[in-house]
Amino acid sequence: MAAPSFVTGAAGFIGSNLVDRLLALGQPVVGYDNFSTGQERFLEGALRHPGFRLVRGDVLDLDAVRCAMLGCETVYHLAANADVRFGADHPRRDLDQNAVATWNVLEAMRLNGIGRIAFASTGSIYGEAHVIPTPEDCPFPVQTSLYGASKLAAEGLIAAYCETFAIRAWIFRFVSILGARYSHGHVFDFYRQLLEHPDYLRVLGDGHQRKSYLHVEDCLDAIFRAMESGAEKVTVLNLGTDEYCAVNDSIGWICGRLGVAPRIEYTGGDRGWIGDNPFIFLDCAKVRSLGWAPRYGIRESVIQTVEYLMGNRWLLESRE
Amino acid sequence: MAAPSFVTGAAGFIGSNLVDRLLALGQPVVGYDNFSTGQERFLEGALRHPGFRLVRGDVLDLDAVRCAMLGCETVYHLAANADVRFGADHPRRDLDQNAVATWNVLEAMRLNGIGRIAFASTGSIYGEAHVIPTPEDCPFPVQTSLYGASKLAAEGLIAAYCETFAIRAWIFRFVSILGARYSHGHVFDFYRQLLEHPDYLRVLGDGHQRKSYLHVEDCLDAIFRAMESGAEKVTVLNLGTDEYCAVNDSIGWICGRLGVAPRIEYTGGDRGWIGDNPFIFLDCAKVRSLGWAPRYGIRESVIQTVEYLMGNRWLLESRE
Repeated sequence: MAAPSFVTGAAGFIGSNLVDRLLALGQPVVGYDNFSTGQERFLEGALRHPGFRLVRGDVLDLDAVRCAMLGCETVYHLAANADVRFGADHPRRDLDQNAVATWNVLEAMRLNGIGRIAFASTGSIYGEAHVIPTPEDCPFPVQTSLYGASKLAAEGLIAAYCETFAIRAWIFRFVSILGARYSHGHVFDFYRQLLEHPDYLRVLGDGHQRKSYLHVEDCLDAIFRAMESGAEKVTVLNLGTDEYCAVNDSIGWICGRLGVAPRIEYTGGDRGWIGDNPFIFLDCAKVRSLGWAPRYGIRESVIQTVEYLMGNRWLLESRE
Repeated sequence: MAAPSFVTGAAGFIGSNLVDRLLALGQPVVGYDNFSTGQERFLEGALRHPGFRLVRGDVLDLDAVRCAMLGCETVYHLAANADVRFGADHPRRDLDQNAVATWNVLEAMRLNGIGRIAFASTGSIYGEAHVIPTPEDCPFPVQTSLYGASKLAAEGLIAAYCETFAIRAWIFRFVSILGARYSHGHVFDFYRQLLEHPDYLRVLGDGHQRKSYLHVEDCLDAIFRAMESGAEKVTVLNLGTDEYCAVNDSIGWICGRLGVAPRIEYTGGDRGWIGDNPFIFLDCAKVRSLGWAPRYGIRESVIQTVEYLMGNRWLLESRE
């Protein structure tokens, strides 16, 4: 049997979808999660699969992650603090959970002689990009959020490890991901609000912020496609669709699907929170040149996500 | 009296020169250093000055740095692991001493309500730049050393703190700095070798690596000039001269000044060590547009540095 893949954040939104896909491809998987935000139920299917082994542990515990990783061949590092909005409330969390944790993962790889890593980075590292759509080699950006800064730090550590030790990396700069098991972000917040009070919706900012989204299945397709190709030591790829939408567009799709017509109150300003980027739109020509194209548009992804949440009310309760 | 400036790495090469300059300008200074590589003797003059106070402490000790910083107005954060060559030997050191330490400094500033920081970054964050001379807004680089990655992480944290909290930053990307109190780098290594065996010199790489240098006095002039101007939240500036030299040029100047003609043995290859960048040359048009220009050329800086080392043999012994 092939050596297993190691997935950090295996019980998370993207991580658990990745685990299921790897298992479906016949690849054994060691899933690693501390269940701080991960969900046992996301792994229900995987846990019945003989190729899956779950290790409960924290990526901040180097010994634990090193032991769990033993014998694996490829690391998918998805564990992160993904709450971009709350950097100001706990300024150390991003540094620890994204940068220091990534160092631990790299060090565990080095100690175990593991040579391949895929990393979930973010379009937030472009800060407020001057070039839109933003390509991977855009002008050197200035960071605008602790989340983005900590992911940039992680990217830098990964690239330096690749240069210094015998490791190859695929760094994926995601737009916001939607789809089954989606469990935080604006669709989640709006759905929860409209469940509690269908006649009223509070929106951060002025509703004109323009954002990009990608369906989790398209995201995973792109990751697999990229990792089959790429001769470089470090491959950096934007992952998104060739479109964006305004927050107000998304509100329209969500309300339409739910059949509600709430009064909308905007908190105002062109940013929803400190470090919010009023326009995120990535140039994805590089990943498209590998033969990948998304199957879902943003509208479809938003509506599918609403439908997933409608069928999985337990998730809203678990995230109170 | 004005509120003091706070200098981390105050007993280091650049830090101690900065302390002396600030005191000469009539500005009180709190110097902070753990003396892991700093030198008491660099602060001999400062310690006799009534405007100077020295605090022994580590930037990795948040409480200590927070207490020491109380009442200061501007922070000059120079404390760092500056040994770019040895990342592979202790892969955690750069992360701790550059990224985590910078987070501590920022957090201490936030807790003390201090709103200005100057940061010693490095041209190493450009990795192997594709655009040479390299401007501040060159294409988003891929990191090639743990040192560069950790400085990039620090830059990102600083910028994110500026966006999130009420802080303004000046980030200086230095080439290698030379001049009085210079105490590590190729001139130091070559001088030490030639003192031990004047007829033989071992050189890492092929001698054709092209590097840029700046005199510490010019470096400090640029820092002061930049901090008088700059309306941006985050000002990023390259600091270097408009020239570069090959390692072999520098060897010629050093040997000429010392009156030696050693047999030279090259270890070979276009890189002296893993992560070594064979060509560093920064575009410094931005800082020049502020009216600054260097007074010393690279040749003069190298020779002055050799002369400083000749007059300060104790420094070689202290760095065994």
